[in-house]
Amino acid sequence: MANITSVSPLAPASFPTLPVIKGARFATAAAGVKYAGRTDVMLAILDPGTCVAGAFTKSATRSANVLDCQSKIRLEDGAGAAIIVNSGNSNAFTGRAGDESVQAICAEVASVTGLPTTRVFTSSTGVIGERLPHDRIQAKIQELSNNLDEANLPAAAKAIMTTDTFPKGSATSVDLPGGTISIAGIAKGSGMIAPDMATMLVYIFTDAKIAQPDLQAMVSELNEKTFNSITVDSDTSTSDTLLVAATGASNVLVAADNARFRDALHSVMRDLAHQVVRDGEGATKFVQITVTGALNDADAKTHAMSIANSPLVKTAIAGEDPNWGRVVMAIGKSGAPADRDTLSISFGDVKVASNGWVDPNYREEQGAEIMKDQNISMAVDLGMGAGASTVWTCDLTHGYISINADYRS
Amino acid sequence: MANITSVSPLAPASFPTLPVIKGARFATAAAGVKYAGRTDVMLAILDPGTCVAGAFTKSATRSANVLDCQSKIRLEDGAGAAIIVNSGNSNAFTGRAGDESVQAICAEVASVTGLPTTRVFTSSTGVIGERLPHDRIQAKIQELSNNLDEANLPAAAKAIMTTDTFPKGSATSVDLPGGTISIAGIAKGSGMIAPDMATMLVYIFTDAKIAQPDLQAMVSELNEKTFNSITVDSDTSTSDTLLVAATGASNVLVAADNARFRDALHSVMRDLAHQVVRDGEGATKFVQITVTGALNDADAKTHAMSIANSPLVKTAIAGEDPNWGRVVMAIGKSGAPADRDTLSISFGDVKVASNGWVDPNYREEQGAEIMKDQNISMAVDLGMGAGASTVWTCDLTHGYISINADYRS
Repeated sequence: MANITSVSPLAPASFPTLPVIKGARFATAAAGVKYAGRTDVMLAILDPGTCVAGAFTKSATRSANVLDCQSKIRLEDGAGAAIIVNSGNSNAFTGRAGDESVQAICAEVASVTGLPTTRVFTSSTGVIGERLPHDRIQAKIQELSNNLDEANLPAAAKAIMTTDTFPKGSATSVDLPGGTISIAGIAKGSGMIAPDMATMLVYIFTDAKIAQPDLQAMVSELNEKTFNSITVDSDTSTSDTLLVAATGASNVLVAADNARFRDALHSVMRDLAHQVVRDGEGATKFVQITVTGALNDADAKTHAMSIANSPLVKTAIAGEDPNWGRVVMAIGKSGAPADRDTLSISFGDVKVASNGWVDPNYREEQGAEIMKDQNISMAVDLGMGAGASTVWTCDLTHGYISINADYRS
Repeated sequence: MANITSVSPLAPASFPTLPVIKGARFATAAAGVKYAGRTDVMLAILDPGTCVAGAFTKSATRSANVLDCQSKIRLEDGAGAAIIVNSGNSNAFTGRAGDESVQAICAEVASVTGLPTTRVFTSSTGVIGERLPHDRIQAKIQELSNNLDEANLPAAAKAIMTTDTFPKGSATSVDLPGGTISIAGIAKGSGMIAPDMATMLVYIFTDAKIAQPDLQAMVSELNEKTFNSITVDSDTSTSDTLLVAATGASNVLVAADNARFRDALHSVMRDLAHQVVRDGEGATKFVQITVTGALNDADAKTHAMSIANSPLVKTAIAGEDPNWGRVVMAIGKSGAPADRDTLSISFGDVKVASNGWVDPNYREEQGAEIMKDQNISMAVDLGMGAGASTVWTCDLTHGYISINADYRS
């Protein structure tokens, strides 16, 4: 196993203070699914009146847990809800046994908490292809239930880590006409040692009172602009899960068009998405790529993700090389329309290419200076229309190869 | 600049003997486009009666040379043809100046040889974004024309190299009812030091007598199964060009449905495609990926290329790790249909997964043994239909990062 115990150089200075979310309580336990000497299960119990929205991996080989969550996410019956997550085993590609493990865990949580199984959501992250020892998780559910506390969300952020180099949290509060609501979330992802996969799991809680369809619409829209706009290495986990639970315990009503709530939720989702990139395997640079002037937003995102996923662009960034030719290449191969002669590219605030050629005022030293920064922005204007998109990625370094190739499982 | 002077460990033992192709003559020269002390231009002159077929990069930012070749490839007037190729400068993303360079070179070749400019095909490979010093090439065309010889194809293979670690050639002959025809080809590609791009250039010559539409149909079909079925790092050059010239000088007629000619051409194209992969940057393993049981061939290729392009699969291969979970992941993310519960995976002749889970007879040591080989085959059966595809790739190693990141241009 590669030794990657050091924290990512791109990690935030500290874990944020998370506000209490009324109506939500959390507990963690050490079930010994795989890891020794650490917590590896978290349980969230959400009071009656909670609604849950979600977004999931589109993988055709998604895990049993994801399939189960998807079947339940639209059911709404006024009961509370539970979210139970284990690290150490992803329960992915475990055949019918994987479905049985999910059902066993849901049944035990339902039995201990009195919730219907249709309101129990599960996630698993860790090694794939090995049967989940769900009995170890079942054996801890009474203990978890006894230890629930509204202050335990930071502990939950640690329990769901696999090879993340730092726990990930984000929160905000908004003063609305009816009172103050809070949003707090945790995430795991991108620090990975095979045979794990870089599963991204995200759980966000708010005490706002919002209808499930309104919350789901907001989550789906914002997910495209946040978690679906990041990439570390273009590989997609079979377990990616985002759940957003609104307990309603603040009694502050939020309508579908509440821009302030939407912006607050957006900020928490974007912050957590950025933290996942900042824990990207081997990452030494955080990179923002903005594409404008596309025929539509979808084309802009296709181009932006093509740049963000290009090994040649990512290695150039690692090498601090202002190699705009590789950006041109990535645009050309994306499959979305582009016109060489209207294309312009900027690195930071320096225009490097315009009208299909190197910008006449560009000097290589300017680009080289930009590339030394830890945070790099690249902007492409296609000069064709009004479509725009911003995505985030990291560089591709020897660290990535070391983490993923320099061992035998 | 990274030091990658050593020949790829996957290179063939020696350059093959290439047969004379009647009706085709070649010359090389040192024009000093960028490199010193080596040849960097090759000229091929093809006798009257030659037809030319081609396939080109689909990049939206393709080079001026590619656009010019595409505009000429369907024109057929019984005249001969010329192919002129330079290394050292790709003439890509050079705005209108790039078009002017192509026209200047074509005009000079036409002037010296008496061919119409519509029968002069050009390629350029090397640094991008810098104006091609086409005057240096123009100045060598009379010398090239004086030195044409049917034995110079191996020299041409060297002149078109950029950072390839070995020249690439392949040939075969076929006895047909009307006589023997020969096919000989050269290629460059995949050994790359930025700011070049891994342009793949391929030129194949035959003395068969075949109609241009028949040759084009064969080339287009076989290109999908050969050069369009290889990947080193998923990045696509702006200059990729394949030209196949049939001089007809053997007077052996080949019809559209001639399976023996088609198979011979296929073998040369596949051999050259494999050599490009074997010169992949940092490659230490040659990998064949076959997908069967897809709903159709296109879906099978989508899955196969998703596996071949996955950084996690490629780093696992580099680490000699039989990590079939990453193959499952790559299938899941490809976007083409798959069913977890009918999926099986083999490494070499060992079945590692079947029916959506690890195969009950599989032992990790078996997979580990397979992964030690320099040539590795992976087979996936989706269990859904009759669609099939085979693609080839290499592993992703520290060598790739060193070549592409460990320098400043």
